[in-house]
Amino acid sequence: METSVRPYYVPVGNEERVFLAAFRQGLPIMLKGPTGCGKTRFVEAMAHQAGRPLITVACHDDLSTADLVGRYLLQGGETRWVDGPLTRAVREGAICYLDEVVEARQDTTVVLHPLADHRRQLPIDRLGVTLDAAEGFCLVVSYNPGYQSVLKDLKDSTRQRMIAIELGYPPAEIEEKIIAVEAAADQRAAAQLVRIGRAVRQADAPGLREVASTRVLISAAKLIAEGLAPGDAARAAIAGPLTDDPLVAANLTAVIDAYLQE
Amino acid sequence: METSVRPYYVPVGNEERVFLAAFRQGLPIMLKGPTGCGKTRFVEAMAHQAGRPLITVACHDDLSTADLVGRYLLQGGETRWVDGPLTRAVREGAICYLDEVVEARQDTTVVLHPLADHRRQLPIDRLGVTLDAAEGFCLVVSYNPGYQSVLKDLKDSTRQRMIAIELGYPPAEIEEKIIAVEAAADQRAAAQLVRIGRAVRQADAPGLREVASTRVLISAAKLIAEGLAPGDAARAAIAGPLTDDPLVAANLTAVIDAYLQE
Amino acid sequence: METSVRPYYVPVGNEERVFLAAFRQGLPIMLKGPTGCGKTRFVEAMAHQAGRPLITVACHDDLSTADLVGRYLLQGGETRWVDGPLTRAVREGAICYLDEVVEARQDTTVVLHPLADHRRQLPIDRLGVTLDAAEGFCLVVSYNPGYQSVLKDLKDSTRQRMIAIELGYPPAEIEEKIIAVEAAADQRAAAQLVRIGRAVRQADAPGLREVASTRVLISAAKLIAEGLAPGDAARAAIAGPLTDDPLVAANLTAVIDAYLQE
Amino acid sequence: METSVRPYYVPVGNEERVFLAAFRQGLPIMLKGPTGCGKTRFVEAMAHQAGRPLITVACHDDLSTADLVGRYLLQGGETRWVDGPLTRAVREGAICYLDEVVEARQDTTVVLHPLADHRRQLPIDRLGVTLDAAEGFCLVVSYNPGYQSVLKDLKDSTRQRMIAIELGYPPAEIEEKIIAVEAAADQRAAAQLVRIGRAVRQADAPGLREVASTRVLISAAKLIAEGLAPGDAARAAIAGPLTDDPLVAANLTAVIDAYLQE
Amino acid sequence: METSVRPYYVPVGNEERVFLAAFRQGLPIMLKGPTGCGKTRFVEAMAHQAGRPLITVACHDDLSTADLVGRYLLQGGETRWVDGPLTRAVREGAICYLDEVVEARQDTTVVLHPLADHRRQLPIDRLGVTLDAAEGFCLVVSYNPGYQSVLKDLKDSTRQRMIAIELGYPPAEIEEKIIAVEAAADQRAAAQLVRIGRAVRQADAPGLREVASTRVLISAAKLIAEGLAPGDAARAAIAGPLTDDPLVAANLTAVIDAYLQE
Amino acid sequence: METSVRPYYVPVGNEERVFLAAFRQGLPIMLKGPTGCGKTRFVEAMAHQAGRPLITVACHDDLSTADLVGRYLLQGGETRWVDGPLTRAVREGAICYLDEVVEARQDTTVVLHPLADHRRQLPIDRLGVTLDAAEGFCLVVSYNPGYQSVLKDLKDSTRQRMIAIELGYPPAEIEEKIIAVEAAADQRAAAQLVRIGRAVRQADAPGLREVASTRVLISAAKLIAEGLAPGDAARAAIAGPLTDDPLVAANLTAVIDAYLQE
Repeated sequence: METSVRPYYVPVGNEERVFLAAFRQGLPIMLKGPTGCGKTRFVEAMAHQAGRPLITVACHDDLSTADLVGRYLLQGGETRWVDGPLTRAVREGAICYLDEVVEARQDTTVVLHPLADHRRQLPIDRLGVTLDAAEGFCLVVSYNPGYQSVLKDLKDSTRQRMIAIELGYPPAEIEEKIIAVEAAADQRAAAQLVRIGRAVRQADAPGLREVASTRVLISAAKLIAEGLAPGDAARAAIAGPLTDDPLVAANLTAVIDAYLQE
Repeated sequence: METSVRPYYVPVGNEERVFLAAFRQGLPIMLKGPTGCGKTRFVEAMAHQAGRPLITVACHDDLSTADLVGRYLLQGGETRWVDGPLTRAVREGAICYLDEVVEARQDTTVVLHPLADHRRQLPIDRLGVTLDAAEGFCLVVSYNPGYQSVLKDLKDSTRQRMIAIELGYPPAEIEEKIIAVEAAADQRAAAQLVRIGRAVRQADAPGLREVASTRVLISAAKLIAEGLAPGDAARAAIAGPLTDDPLVAANLTAVIDAYLQE
Repeated sequence: METSVRPYYVPVGNEERVFLAAFRQGLPIMLKGPTGCGKTRFVEAMAHQAGRPLITVACHDDLSTADLVGRYLLQGGETRWVDGPLTRAVREGAICYLDEVVEARQDTTVVLHPLADHRRQLPIDRLGVTLDAAEGFCLVVSYNPGYQSVLKDLKDSTRQRMIAIELGYPPAEIEEKIIAVEAAADQRAAAQLVRIGRAVRQADAPGLREVASTRVLISAAKLIAEGLAPGDAARAAIAGPLTDDPLVAANLTAVIDAYLQE
Repeated sequence: METSVRPYYVPVGNEERVFLAAFRQGLPIMLKGPTGCGKTRFVEAMAHQAGRPLITVACHDDLSTADLVGRYLLQGGETRWVDGPLTRAVREGAICYLDEVVEARQDTTVVLHPLADHRRQLPIDRLGVTLDAAEGFCLVVSYNPGYQSVLKDLKDSTRQRMIAIELGYPPAEIEEKIIAVEAAADQRAAAQLVRIGRAVRQADAPGLREVASTRVLISAAKLIAEGLAPGDAARAAIAGPLTDDPLVAANLTAVIDAYLQE
Repeated sequence: METSVRPYYVPVGNEERVFLAAFRQGLPIMLKGPTGCGKTRFVEAMAHQAGRPLITVACHDDLSTADLVGRYLLQGGETRWVDGPLTRAVREGAICYLDEVVEARQDTTVVLHPLADHRRQLPIDRLGVTLDAAEGFCLVVSYNPGYQSVLKDLKDSTRQRMIAIELGYPPAEIEEKIIAVEAAADQRAAAQLVRIGRAVRQADAPGLREVASTRVLISAAKLIAEGLAPGDAARAAIAGPLTDDPLVAANLTAVIDAYLQE
Repeated sequence: METSVRPYYVPVGNEERVFLAAFRQGLPIMLKGPTGCGKTRFVEAMAHQAGRPLITVACHDDLSTADLVGRYLLQGGETRWVDGPLTRAVREGAICYLDEVVEARQDTTVVLHPLADHRRQLPIDRLGVTLDAAEGFCLVVSYNPGYQSVLKDLKDSTRQRMIAIELGYPPAEIEEKIIAVEAAADQRAAAQLVRIGRAVRQADAPGLREVASTRVLISAAKLIAEGLAPGDAARAAIAGPLTDDPLVAANLTAVIDAYLQE
């Protein structure tokens, strides 16, 4: 996961300064932002900057405390303890990134509390030990505020232990640059796709649950680079993933076609 | 699963070009389409075309992450790790086809995220390793948009990682050809069954949850080839599976009988 | 389960011809019909006719995929794989009969899909193998359409893979013959019980959830053969099982007594 | 469980004749009746009469199929199969009594179906065998119709496999005799308690969920035999168990005191 | 648990006589009473009087039948059966006290039925044995009628097997004596706390879920004995535990302060 | 966990005296207070004062009784018992602190009852033993009354076993001192942040679920100490964690900016 070249990330605001200040103070960080805006890439770049390994955990409903902390496995007739990713990060002083943390059950996030305050400790009840986090350990969690519901939300006692950083889609000129670099696309196609993306984001059509992320624009650019017509590429990479509703899809296609004619 | 003869699939639109472009770019693919329209056969043909093995997983509510990724089994007093189908596909560079993916719990699909974006990685927490997907690995998922509900739907963050391809029932002349080939039926029976199928699809009768798929028309043709009267075959293969409601069944029988008289 | 004498089954319509045509084409079969009309006996007779062993699974809410397909068991410090009934049927080319299939969870039935279409394959993920069904394997499922609810129903994608056969209670003269044979009862008692049964079936009394099946008439005949008075036998075998409501029971008793006086 | 003296049971109607006729025909039996009316004692007497051992299972919500049929246990590093009570009854030709069967989940009762019809077989999927029930095996289930709800009810396909016997509280002179014998009480106390019991049964007070069973009258008689005043005994054994509502309890106490003054 | 000094319990009514009569007849006992009125202490005193060991089980939602009866544990590569507390009580002839029995699931209490009627037997299906309860075994359960709901209630068939004893808070002069003895408090403080307790019990303030039990009065007396001011002690031991509502707490504090001025 | 320097805690009321009185009497303690007001630090200081080790358990929905009490683990082919944190505290005479106890299931807290009354005993059913708590053992639980709901609440029978201590945010001058010490911040920044915190606490804005705790003010001070502008620090540490609502966030930012201008 450690790379010698800094992962490609173009900052938009003060997000890098806030991250590094919190990292130096040992304060945990929560990233808020919509689908496909670059949260994962941002953490990869910051881990590189801070010179720490990055351990990523994709959270889900069934993620148990044991999945994070570790468990006993049977080997050669003996049970042997195997560290989970959180415990490994605590021992190695790594950045532990819990992606889409609101998917995890609240009880799983409670295990983070002693790590996330002045104690910086991980009690492992099954081993009967309490680990002090190594220098450099930093907890980072992310979620999409647009998905939150009463059922899927971080507890206030978890939130108040963290420093918040909010990310959004980048401004047009930065987004064009990102698409051109990521998809090895030419400038004109990138600019066209950014215009389509911004039109879809402003449309706010009923039936459209999400807007076109930077990620889907990159996908469309890749299909074009493969030789698909821009219209086919945009329908397959933008309209298709955004909706299953035939009417909404027709509207999206009309938007796409209008901007491709320009 | 690898066959030396290309599986029988007749393209209707640009679905083959989009699939192969996404495959070459390493982008995951989502197939949308109704029951029995040929999604499985399409993936078989594409895997053959791309020269990659095909590993299919029928998704269901109880499919756990361990079922996809692998688990420890006890053998000779030792626990031994056994790869799941997703991990095998990642290692071998196979096409991994998750059939009816919306049946799987959302938390199971979250494990696909690092595989479905620029990382193309599968972190296996229980082994403490992160696999890079082999060249040729491609993730394909399918679902029927007509079944979707709030509870059973792909998350937007999953959808936006994918290229969409939409399939439907083929036009009449192609469907006749498919039935004749698949059921070794004569042209006249195939044409009659296609007319019945299209009549049922247009009927949109209340109480009828699904329309007659290409698959049920092939089944009817097979029963006729076995010597059953066309009416008996159509009732057993088309009307019976489509409804349990006596009234709706009577209407379907009337439609069938009308078209068999022609 | 294989018997050298054909199990006693009296056909009413074309059900035997449809079953054998589907069997020869390798198409799965769904039997619909009310409680106690003879579905199990029909499958036993058809298995005998087709010369294939019969493996029956009584479905229920907790039936897991592992119960059908197989699981690892610990033996002598080693885990050993033990085939489930479905896997045994696939290997031996047996008829696999899933009784009351709507009781099983939908995710359990999804494992049937690759077996129920042109693939005729059973992927066993835990073994990492995919079995081709042996010649003669045939999947048969049954359910009672009267019990179906939104929660307990076969998925359309499962239904459309199958050939439907509908069974009902036999006409009076056939039902008399069946009762006489099954219970070793005299013709007069059998005729009397059939008249009672048909009266109860037409009554459609509120509070009566089911009608008198051929099975309960046979039970009553057996009690009479044991020396019980016809009225006592009919109350214990027909009225008692059909209702717990004192009022409905009194009505049933009145119907029984009226027909016994004839 | 086998006793050389016939357990004390006083018949009220034709229940013994119906039981033994069904037993000889190998038909399963369902006993209906209120709490504490003597269902268990009746089965004990019938098992003695039929000369078969009695195996009783108290049903509950968590009773799994494995609890009935058996499971593998680890012993000396080997898994060893241990029969459940149902399997033992099937092998030994015992009477298997499932007490309060509606408490069991419906899926647990489905395992009874092949045992409860003409097949008289118990398929044990985990052993891969199908047992034929030994001569003398008989399935008996009981429930209280007053408790039944939509959620807790026997399926019709289970009910229609059985012969029904309905039990109630015995008439006064028989109930007096039972109390006198069971509690070694004098005739006068027994008669007094029966009068109290019948008054409470007729009261049908709101807030009173159950009526005074023969069992609570016996308990009261036992406390009197221990030297408690009849009023104290009746309050502790009858009023206290029947209600927690102070008002209802006061009414019951008034009824008790009135009948004790006689 | 056996003590040579009789545990301190002051009887209020005929509860000791009823307990010992039921004990001698082998009848199970249910204790009803509010939080902290002395149910546990009463059972300790009765067990001492009867000369039997006391085995206590604190019931809860997850208490399984195996927790009561026993289970197999793996030891030295062999599974070894370990008796649960109920089984130990049955073998040793102890008093088995199930505290807050309504917390247990109804299916767990069903296992008590054969122990609680004339059979006095504990069938242990997993061992394939049925234990006869040793002389002196007695089942005692307790619950707080004020907590009962439809979901958390004893089944009538369980209740009707038991003798009921109802306990409440003791009259003022007895309660003073208890507090003085238990907290080694002086008579004046005890009398003051009893007056406070009785005032709170009569207040029946909305928002107050429970009244001040004898137990909280003893706690307050202990804090006073430690040197806290009576007001601080009463607020910490009485008002704080009874409510989290600031308004209700203020009212309680006013009551406390008023009575302390006397 | 034992420290030779008393952890930094500044008392506000009589909380230290009440804690130590309850500790000396062996009475369990419940701490009530909002998120981030210093409950954990208070318990650390009291444990140091009492000279007892501190064992902390972060409670959550899945915390089982076995997690608290202990379980058998397989080692070298033998099962070995491993004490849970509660059992260790009981044996060592430690202070056992159950943080956010209302998160635990009620059935888990029931295991605390015999420890929390005059018995001071921990029955471990799986070992068949009952431990007497060592001298110095003290049970402390905490919760936030503002979070409580009907579903997540301590049972009255648990509450009435405990002494209540209520904590809140400290008065301005004490809070300034705490922030200056904890974040090594200068007096002016600390005073500014306290003013912001108090303004937010009084705002009671709709959409704001929690108020600014002492903890978030310390975090903001730490970011300022790292060189961030006070506005950036306050937005990242106060406004971001408190809300995801853009409107509420804008209001908070306005409050922050207003107070920073002073």
